[in-house]
Amino acid sequence: MSRIAYVNGRYVPHRQANVHIEDRGYQFSDGIYEVIAVEGGRLADEDWHWDRWDRSLAELRIAPPMARAPLKAIAREVLRRNGVVDGIVYMQATRGVAPRDHAFPKRAKTALVMTARRKKPAADVLAQRGAKVVTIPDIRWSRCDIKAVALLPNVLGKQAAVEKGAFEAWQVDGAGQVTEGTSTNAWIVTASGELVTRRPSNDILNGVTRLAVMDIARDHQLRVVERSFSVAEAKAAKEAFLTSTTSAVMPVVEIDGVPVGDGKPGSVANALRARYVERVAGAA
Amino acid sequence: MSRIAYVNGRYVPHRQANVHIEDRGYQFSDGIYEVIAVEGGRLADEDWHWDRWDRSLAELRIAPPMARAPLKAIAREVLRRNGVVDGIVYMQATRGVAPRDHAFPKRAKTALVMTARRKKPAADVLAQRGAKVVTIPDIRWSRCDIKAVALLPNVLGKQAAVEKGAFEAWQVDGAGQVTEGTSTNAWIVTASGELVTRRPSNDILNGVTRLAVMDIARDHQLRVVERSFSVAEAKAAKEAFLTSTTSAVMPVVEIDGVPVGDGKPGSVANALRARYVERVAGAA
Repeated sequence: MSRIAYVNGRYVPHRQANVHIEDRGYQFSDGIYEVIAVEGGRLADEDWHWDRWDRSLAELRIAPPMARAPLKAIAREVLRRNGVVDGIVYMQATRGVAPRDHAFPKRAKTALVMTARRKKPAADVLAQRGAKVVTIPDIRWSRCDIKAVALLPNVLGKQAAVEKGAFEAWQVDGAGQVTEGTSTNAWIVTASGELVTRRPSNDILNGVTRLAVMDIARDHQLRVVERSFSVAEAKAAKEAFLTSTTSAVMPVVEIDGVPVGDGKPGSVANALRARYVERVAGAA
Repeated sequence: MSRIAYVNGRYVPHRQANVHIEDRGYQFSDGIYEVIAVEGGRLADEDWHWDRWDRSLAELRIAPPMARAPLKAIAREVLRRNGVVDGIVYMQATRGVAPRDHAFPKRAKTALVMTARRKKPAADVLAQRGAKVVTIPDIRWSRCDIKAVALLPNVLGKQAAVEKGAFEAWQVDGAGQVTEGTSTNAWIVTASGELVTRRPSNDILNGVTRLAVMDIARDHQLRVVERSFSVAEAKAAKEAFLTSTTSAVMPVVEIDGVPVGDGKPGSVANALRARYVERVAGAA
């Protein structure tokens, strides 16, 4: 089955899925994106993603490419045409094609691209043994709350992790506090069993899986505290984990070579992962 | 004459100049660029641009798409095919096309795009009366020394300037010191006639026109001091100006609504602009 992409109004073979060289996404990273997990054909927490999509567009003053209903329809059609029942759908919108000039173009039509791919089993395998993370300075811009395609620092950070044999890099602000991973939110579990994750601000992306885990925690009478934590506190924590659309809830067993807890996935992280999977499947 | 672009080995009509939706430039802003001024068919300070091109690629560990000699040949061919004698040539390289994943792909071929366009007379007209600038917080990442296509903050800054009737926005760091414009370097002239511009660091792009002006200043026994300056110092300066490939040397006559000097282009800025134009033309 050959892959199909949606590009600006057309469903095209993936190999021929092109955008213009003067698409502002290509020349200026002037665009936004979302990634939605698909389980049993259902889009997980879909409206939270579209809410954030709307917010990112509004913050950058990019005209919405279309209303939510047709966006949802296209996402489903891309999934259907690619035979994806368990996997992800990726959507990107940019300010469109215009002669190169930094300021917003007077006339440009928001560009819209969607793709889908099947789930990779790697995340489940990794969750069994837990993920290693390294810490790096957070060198990103000041609007990390916008899910923009200006991801170059995230690329460099993830690569730094991979080269150290780690799954993710936790970025650390000037005060020594963890902001988030390069494509995931960061969490710890304290000795008293509290879940700690950074408060939403311009410094982090308010992850949809982060919100889902907060929901789950509330349902299970787990206390969640939204505050910053240092690298030292994370290394000394009872447990650590990270959350994202593609990783769900991923136990963290090592930070900069230091084992977290007993160096195995923690019981809280494991339980949250199970509840999260149930939640997505149950809603399907 | 229809425009022609170079895209990954082919010269194609501009309208059909496309890249794949999974080009990492489009999804991750994982690429770099240069803009070279062309005067009388000659590429201004060309090797300085290619030196910076090499440096940007090296900092991001993107494999050079080819050696300098063939890059120069393509730039000339793009200019020739577009009939550009006075204008600019734009070149962009990205880490190439690969399935979306933050870390560097194991197999990807550096993508290369070049375009050319004729000079816009707007810059000369503006230089006659001088440019207005506004100041904004510098919200960019920590590696502004790399000429990367992750330009979203620059886009937002330039747009803020345009909406206030200004030509450029000077970005200001946490200490109240000007870093640079969104696509230009910032300069002031002190009461004693010293030229002041920020020292190269990770905070600014070391502009080629900036370097050319330093050369010119030395040739004319003008003292250049590389140091930071505050917004207040700039507003009280004898003169101010900015430099870039497309603006050359542009007098600044107003900062945040406050006239600089007598509110007209200063004699030092005017002289530097004239010498810069001569320098480029003379070398042709």
